Amino acid sequence: MKKSIGAKTLVYPAPVLIVGTYDAEKRPNVMVVAWGGICCSQPPCVAVSLRKATYSHGSIVKRRAFTVSIASEDQVKEVDYFGMASGRTENKFEKTGLTPVASELVDAPYVAECPLVLECRVLHTVEIGLHTEFIGEILDIKADEAVLREDGLPDMEKVKPIAYEPVNGRYFRVGSYLAETHSIGREMETNETFFIA
Amino acid sequence: MKKSIGAKTLVYPAPVLIVGTYDAEKRPNVMVVAWGGICCSQPPCVAVSLRKATYSHGSIVKRRAFTVSIASEDQVKEVDYFGMASGRTENKFEKTGLTPVASELVDAPYVAECPLVLECRVLHTVEIGLHTEFIGEILDIKADEAVLREDGLPDMEKVKPIAYEPVNGRYFRVGSYLAETHSIGREMETNETFFIA
Repeated sequence: MKKSIGAKTLVYPAPVLIVGTYDAEKRPNVMVVAWGGICCSQPPCVAVSLRKATYSHGSIVKRRAFTVSIASEDQVKEVDYFGMASGRTENKFEKTGLTPVASELVDAPYVAECPLVLECRVLHTVEIGLHTEFIGEILDIKADEAVLREDGLPDMEKVKPIAYEPVNGRYFRVGSYLAETHSIGREMETNETFFIA
Repeated sequence: MKKSIGAKTLVYPAPVLIVGTYDAEKRPNVMVVAWGGICCSQPPCVAVSLRKATYSHGSIVKRRAFTVSIASEDQVKEVDYFGMASGRTENKFEKTGLTPVASELVDAPYVAECPLVLECRVLHTVEIGLHTEFIGEILDIKADEAVLREDGLPDMEKVKPIAYEPVNGRYFRVGSYLAETHSIGREMETNETFFIA
């Protein structure tokens, strides 16, 4: 029996997206966004939603660009700090000792120490309510060689990204392997033999 | 040293969102969407991106409603099948033995056996490219009592949702607990004592 728990912002798991921007004075800044994800395959796009009150919001509106750095689980302390402080008053790179790198493709910085980085230019801006959704075209992805498989693609088991639990506000590891897509589902396709039989 | 791997649709981890719809004949259907996530806190909204070619796309456009069922890791076989078959030619509920339940709030069905369900009405439709992004206001969430904590909120460790690895096409469990938000990041705030010292 299901119980109504009201209208909450719950999707499990949510990602931990470190959004990198330059402010009006070209100072690098980062914030953490859990409201977002891939939203189109062609062109490849990622969506990130920010409150208008955030310092990063104005930077994206002005520069029409942002990066998304994917942190590893051993960077959870820095991630948590990025989500607490404001770039209006603090230099989050100095505080954490992490390194801003200027993207060569878009007018935004990324976090050198994060294993995976998306460089994005704003394609659409959707005013939803408290949050503005910025849809960014992914122009390139930069990955640490250490997280690449032999075929040159990143391996989530090597990236060790953080999964976020909304509402309860907790960070988790990504766990063990379950299955390939388009594999075990095939067993269902043969179920019709039972219905025929 | 980072390596350019090209413009790919990579965010780790991606969610596994089972999108429920009624077609023109009111037949219940489901598909699996990894391109999506929460996109606004007020009103609470979730975004799901679908290719126009999918059968579900037309159903959402017509009925302006959908549900999102969050599966548990022990339902990965059904999830994989939902992502392989098309509701145009197959009754995915019959094939899997899972049960469609009509939402009382929106014109769409959800999966009874999934531990967490979001009921959504379409607020915005964003044509991005290959994918259309439907932004749905979450009107209510229904949860199995077994996944609720004592405070009445769902516990991700009890839901045991599936995490998706895009590009490589693999399903993973959500793993072990790392930290609370706004907790270990506080240590960074005191770092200024080192800079002063």
